Amino acid sequence: MTKFWNTSLSRVSKNKVLIRGYRVEDLMDRCSFGDMIYLSFTGELPAGNEGRILESIVVSSTEHSVMAPSINATRFVASGGVPLQASVAAGLIALGDHHGGAVENCARLLQSAVAAKRGASAIVAHYRESGTRIPGFGHPWHDRDPRTLKLAAQAEAWGLAGPHLELAREIAAELGRVLNIDGAIAGIVSDIGIGWEYGKAFFLISRTVGLAAHHVEETTRERPFRAIAPEDVAYDGPEERDLPAPKPPSPTGG
Amino acid sequence: MTKFWNTSLSRVSKNKVLIRGYRVEDLMDRCSFGDMIYLSFTGELPAGNEGRILESIVVSSTEHSVMAPSINATRFVASGGVPLQASVAAGLIALGDHHGGAVENCARLLQSAVAAKRGASAIVAHYRESGTRIPGFGHPWHDRDPRTLKLAAQAEAWGLAGPHLELAREIAAELGRVLNIDGAIAGIVSDIGIGWEYGKAFFLISRTVGLAAHHVEETTRERPFRAIAPEDVAYDGPEERDLPAPKPPSPTGG
Amino acid sequence: MTKFWNTSLSRVSKNKVLIRGYRVEDLMDRCSFGDMIYLSFTGELPAGNEGRILESIVVSSTEHSVMAPSINATRFVASGGVPLQASVAAGLIALGDHHGGAVENCARLLQSAVAAKRGASAIVAHYRESGTRIPGFGHPWHDRDPRTLKLAAQAEAWGLAGPHLELAREIAAELGRVLNIDGAIAGIVSDIGIGWEYGKAFFLISRTVGLAAHHVEETTRERPFRAIAPEDVAYDGPEERDLPAPKPPSPTGG
Amino acid sequence: MTKFWNTSLSRVSKNKVLIRGYRVEDLMDRCSFGDMIYLSFTGELPAGNEGRILESIVVSSTEHSVMAPSINATRFVASGGVPLQASVAAGLIALGDHHGGAVENCARLLQSAVAAKRGASAIVAHYRESGTRIPGFGHPWHDRDPRTLKLAAQAEAWGLAGPHLELAREIAAELGRVLNIDGAIAGIVSDIGIGWEYGKAFFLISRTVGLAAHHVEETTRERPFRAIAPEDVAYDGPEERDLPAPKPPSPTGG
Repeated sequence: MTKFWNTSLSRVSKNKVLIRGYRVEDLMDRCSFGDMIYLSFTGELPAGNEGRILESIVVSSTEHSVMAPSINATRFVASGGVPLQASVAAGLIALGDHHGGAVENCARLLQSAVAAKRGASAIVAHYRESGTRIPGFGHPWHDRDPRTLKLAAQAEAWGLAGPHLELAREIAAELGRVLNIDGAIAGIVSDIGIGWEYGKAFFLISRTVGLAAHHVEETTRERPFRAIAPEDVAYDGPEERDLPAPKPPSPTGG
Repeated sequence: MTKFWNTSLSRVSKNKVLIRGYRVEDLMDRCSFGDMIYLSFTGELPAGNEGRILESIVVSSTEHSVMAPSINATRFVASGGVPLQASVAAGLIALGDHHGGAVENCARLLQSAVAAKRGASAIVAHYRESGTRIPGFGHPWHDRDPRTLKLAAQAEAWGLAGPHLELAREIAAELGRVLNIDGAIAGIVSDIGIGWEYGKAFFLISRTVGLAAHHVEETTRERPFRAIAPEDVAYDGPEERDLPAPKPPSPTGG
Repeated sequence: MTKFWNTSLSRVSKNKVLIRGYRVEDLMDRCSFGDMIYLSFTGELPAGNEGRILESIVVSSTEHSVMAPSINATRFVASGGVPLQASVAAGLIALGDHHGGAVENCARLLQSAVAAKRGASAIVAHYRESGTRIPGFGHPWHDRDPRTLKLAAQAEAWGLAGPHLELAREIAAELGRVLNIDGAIAGIVSDIGIGWEYGKAFFLISRTVGLAAHHVEETTRERPFRAIAPEDVAYDGPEERDLPAPKPPSPTGG
Repeated sequence: MTKFWNTSLSRVSKNKVLIRGYRVEDLMDRCSFGDMIYLSFTGELPAGNEGRILESIVVSSTEHSVMAPSINATRFVASGGVPLQASVAAGLIALGDHHGGAVENCARLLQSAVAAKRGASAIVAHYRESGTRIPGFGHPWHDRDPRTLKLAAQAEAWGLAGPHLELAREIAAELGRVLNIDGAIAGIVSDIGIGWEYGKAFFLISRTVGLAAHHVEETTRERPFRAIAPEDVAYDGPEERDLPAPKPPSPTGG
């Protein structure tokens, strides 16, 4: 029977909260947050170390100083005088295709390529031809990003590395660019069976912690209304000018 | 000279606000809001009736009852107890590819087709082949949408209708679907020289009025925390179940 | 009869859109956007020049260079690679108590004071005692803000200035601080009969124009992922350190 | 030395990410996500079971069916055709004073009362007098919320329960209302030394998981543009009406 709302995610009734069928109090007793992410996105609890690597993923990306656009967005918004959830939301919106959101695009690429048995050379050739950039490779600062290295090592040690992470590494080699944190997360979550549609979620979950801390730091340490100094702005539009002489009333204009 | 921020939109100094070079107080005296939209998006004031049709466009779309997703979003968010700008923002986020945002995609299509002298038949054939839907055509309720009819009539009467609106109508005829409000706005703003990148802005500007009114209506007429009744939710996930027996410690897990 | 949704704002049926009872196509023919704002927020069309001053208000505040937090938020978010409505929404969220949102707090103050016949001296004394700042007064750059001066002049010329704007000016005199753009809008909208609950809306509506222009400028002129340079960040947290030695398992921890 | 940005949260340099001084790769090896939350918000790693209870808190609140406003907001916004981070952000914005955000207000109350040695009777009397509701008590559905009971039991078992949770229980007894999940979280995070300013963060972090799952469910199972049926909307505004006769030009209007 179909109603306005249909969901398979949870069921709530008086004094009972079931998530994917499990009682929430049982989950609170026995599951890590990584397990919960796995359960929420796949419908089942991990059979192996999947929850552990998800826990490590969300530990890895809470914070990356104020250099990233998401954090700037939250801090500027916080300085306008808004509640914490509003400025955190503003920061999260920034996690688009060029910022963390690359996990989604990279996971989609890896999942479709592995399914179609398409290899790194063909993929790189295709992108080179189209002149677009493959998401998940290259980093402005880090050439040996400690997060990426650790995640890859954990995936190996915990028996989770599979064809998606391998393909990601082959693409990196082919491109001569490092696999970045987005690409590493994309490979790993694909290997543990999570659909690419969830690709942006890991960064969102993790970064919420850091953005909340930046909101509090901004609102407790700084003055309201963070403003850019005029000397940091270059203006290259028209010089000051007068309005044109008024138009005569248009004959067609009624 | 390049600085961290570069802009051609406005320049602000002590007691002076210049927008595209004009003094803001002059604009307040002589320009309509439609004129300001045109100035902001093209860099110049209208030579003819462009500001009038933009004013009509933003008058047309302030409000469409609570049936639309944007309005539902604002009202649910408002019921959580947040400031007006936050719930209005939440509603605006909904104006994506399936909701008002089609103006952008339709304008991009029209502008590239007119530039390339591609006609309605070729366009429709291309979309039919790819199995995707052309944005800007068809409406769930209206087959003679009064907003669309009025905008088209005004564009004609005011000497603004051009090849983009014409192409949009030809596509509608070819498809056998009505030109909807998104498609009409796309055609008209393209004819008056506004780039497709601004396509979503008209609906955003206009709908902000209605969303603000819905926020106030929700927070002054209704009780906090608007909740869906359990009987309006169908659950089709797993039945209540026990957690699996604890796993023995993984030998690879460290 | 009460349903899940109750509204007095508009009614939509097949080929008909009524806003506060008026057919949308009639409004598009005869009303300015300022009239529509008045209609949306009060339920009736203006009897005099109320729509004109609202039009001037929304013309006044579309844009204030990149110096303001709202604009920074939109530009950082846009650089993350997101659709226009999302980055505009992020910027709007910034319009909180310290940024444009002061209109709401100032209008509430003015409306309750006028209703209670409380004068400027009593208000200023009360705030001084509580050590908080009266919203709507003082500006970091402008001591003769052209927007404020023009709005006040228009309100006078158009027969709209009343006790709220007068009280706002008296407070400014008492404080020895200028009436800023927020305070001027607060006084004027209060004088034309708009409830303080709508106070933040005027700035939201207006600024949406400028934020959309900034989104397009950012995404067409600048490279993705706008990052702060490390040398612009001062870090004053703990120096690099090792993790503490692992804790022995807690006897109470189960 | 002060720069535009000042932070004590993290420091990033080439191939190094330090969070509160610790190397991110060390944290990924040894810390749970609950530990990371504690570190982020207090500056230090947990000395005892603080990370465990935070992990349980974020496990507890990922999901509460589609009945809650946050989830409705995300699903309506997702149906508009937007990227995942945008619809999740819209849902998070809903976590205001009446929805999860009560943790902040309740924690502030508990922290100031414990600091001032104010007891439950005085607090309840004060709120009763002012006619406002104490945040964190009462629930529309649950009188024995399994999440609240489990958290309280874990706080006891793990040696974390202290004066804030005790005061929260005394207030509940005095009010004759249950301590709800917001109030329980408020008491516990206060007892482990986290400032009330972070109060909304726990729910934000946790609910991000559920909102992401709802976004994917909405966009993969449902058709775009989720619309309310007209018969679910009651309209009580003015009946259809003609515009008033045009006003003669105003003599004062210029």
